[in-house]
Amino acid sequence: MHINCLKEDLLYGIQVVGKAVSGKNILPILGGILISATDNKLIFRATDLDIAIECSIGADVIKPGSIVVADGRRFIEIVRQLPSGNINMQSINDFDVVLRYSKASLHINGLDTEEFPLLPKIEGEVQGNIKTEIFNRLIRQTIIAASTDNSRPVFTGILLDIKEDYLTMVATDSHRLTISKNAWNGHGSGRYIIPSRTMGELSRILSEESVNIVASQNHVYFQTEKITFVSRVINGQYPDYRQVLPNKNTYTTNVKINTQKFLESISRATLLARDNNSVVKLEFVKEDNIKMSASSPDIGDIKEEIDAVIEGESFSAAYNGRYLLDALKVMESENITIDLTGPVTPGLMRPELEEEDQSEYIYLILPIRVN
Amino acid sequence: MHINCLKEDLLYGIQVVGKAVSGKNILPILGGILISATDNKLIFRATDLDIAIECSIGADVIKPGSIVVADGRRFIEIVRQLPSGNINMQSINDFDVVLRYSKASLHINGLDTEEFPLLPKIEGEVQGNIKTEIFNRLIRQTIIAASTDNSRPVFTGILLDIKEDYLTMVATDSHRLTISKNAWNGHGSGRYIIPSRTMGELSRILSEESVNIVASQNHVYFQTEKITFVSRVINGQYPDYRQVLPNKNTYTTNVKINTQKFLESISRATLLARDNNSVVKLEFVKEDNIKMSASSPDIGDIKEEIDAVIEGESFSAAYNGRYLLDALKVMESENITIDLTGPVTPGLMRPELEEEDQSEYIYLILPIRVN
Repeated sequence: MHINCLKEDLLYGIQVVGKAVSGKNILPILGGILISATDNKLIFRATDLDIAIECSIGADVIKPGSIVVADGRRFIEIVRQLPSGNINMQSINDFDVVLRYSKASLHINGLDTEEFPLLPKIEGEVQGNIKTEIFNRLIRQTIIAASTDNSRPVFTGILLDIKEDYLTMVATDSHRLTISKNAWNGHGSGRYIIPSRTMGELSRILSEESVNIVASQNHVYFQTEKITFVSRVINGQYPDYRQVLPNKNTYTTNVKINTQKFLESISRATLLARDNNSVVKLEFVKEDNIKMSASSPDIGDIKEEIDAVIEGESFSAAYNGRYLLDALKVMESENITIDLTGPVTPGLMRPELEEEDQSEYIYLILPIRVN
Repeated sequence: MHINCLKEDLLYGIQVVGKAVSGKNILPILGGILISATDNKLIFRATDLDIAIECSIGADVIKPGSIVVADGRRFIEIVRQLPSGNINMQSINDFDVVLRYSKASLHINGLDTEEFPLLPKIEGEVQGNIKTEIFNRLIRQTIIAASTDNSRPVFTGILLDIKEDYLTMVATDSHRLTISKNAWNGHGSGRYIIPSRTMGELSRILSEESVNIVASQNHVYFQTEKITFVSRVINGQYPDYRQVLPNKNTYTTNVKINTQKFLESISRATLLARDNNSVVKLEFVKEDNIKMSASSPDIGDIKEEIDAVIEGESFSAAYNGRYLLDALKVMESENITIDLTGPVTPGLMRPELEEEDQSEYIYLILPIRVN
């Protein structure tokens, strides 16, 4: 292998696949990055067996070939420090590579390319295409509710519920449930549970216009022009999330409130409630406002009145303030609505969307029973 | 106590003294912040017994008095989240305080003001005044060499060597020695060792034009218009640092090099040298350049030629790359000079200063003996 490329392109490529470089050293090859030169392209690949990422950049290929950089993470750190401009990269000995720039040379240890795992073959009946901006919003709005408790793997994932017309993501940790849905042009339908950590990494990598999704029973592929991202699927049955939603006819109280104002008040209350299971009490007062209170034996207590439009019955309930904050941070609308059915049933928070929006977001939160 | 003040002023005051709020709970009162209202001022005070900080802000004092907020750190977090504008603050019960803003009230637990330690009385024969910008540079340029090894407390501090005409700061961990000196208008002379952590905190707090220093045997006071910062002095004899400097007549090699270029090369080499005690080899080649090299058994090796003006004898020496980086980051001049006396004696790095500069900075670094 012998190529010329720009430092900036090289860094982009290895940073993208770097998210899949394994930190554990069970299999040394998984700590490496595969670099292949072919057809005026450099293709980078890394995998930790949970995910695999491939990324390509333009390069001047003098001689095609492949190498594996042995310590992928350190290689990223080093390339970040290289001067801007052209980098000449050439394989030497059996596995190693030499980078040349200015009056300098960098000899990097390599591993046998034969040992590097192949990318799973891209295949799947169910597929579709969505704008990256929307795709990332769906992740952002659902990932907050995914469980971190590994004893129930299904709930550590985000469900991708794929239909012809809609892509829906769902996550729940049993205290709250998030559903974020958007129109798309899909083909086929299916349900796939992807590890939430993986979805988080994916949203950090994607920057191109749109993302193509191809889903199969064991793997889901996310593709842009430059990047192919493969994730394993978590096996298991995801519960019927629509069944959890309260019947619209049962709502007794409807609240409309400014998102930012509510967020700021809950932020303060949560600081005081931290010692106390983050319990924030909200009293919804008909036609008036929300009376918020929280207290900590060590710090003190807080009482605020927050302007809101409230229709229906007045009542009080207690919530985990951190869960409220998580939701308010991703509502992304000036006002939100909350539909309530008394102090012991879940409340439904939603952004106030425009008529023409082809999206829906629901954050369902269980109240806390307090004395 | 009953006052009105701006949230921004309140936050500034408690954040400044917050650096002295104790994190350990041996004496609960040291986790608090004393707030005293008097003469249209609010005075904040906190101390962890190593340092004490007092800060004052303007306020509308309706009724003078004092309170101690029990959990100073949490109080800072809460005030940061308050809305902009006026805050009304009133003491209630025996020790507590209520903050009112918008349609809200915040009740904060307090402690007995009688228990709060007094600020040591400001007194000392030795004093002077220096621009904060210069003072902070002296700290920045010396603190990097202070030792973190508590078995020799003297070296964990920064020496303030005060003369009538010059303020000099010195630090060393026995591998390197830093001396940063600037003209000032002083009164008296003396040597005071201040914990380096304290000097770091101090430089983060100071923002006003100039700082006044008053030094006594046990305490050194740093004062600006709004802030009084008191530090304890580390007891012990600081070595005669001037004696460590090599005699100018013994220099065999003089190097002049671009600071930024050298910094970038050493950054790369240090990433490769990390597994290997950060050993970076420099070959000073007469009238030519510096040949830099470093290697790591796991990663690979690097070789660079760095443009430099070199007079005198050619030779090679090895240095700790991280120590070189520490120095290059605080040189604050386009070029630096290095005076050398062969591969086993200390090298002297200095910024290339303008003629009219009333400052001096020396970074003395010991080479590493390698095979």
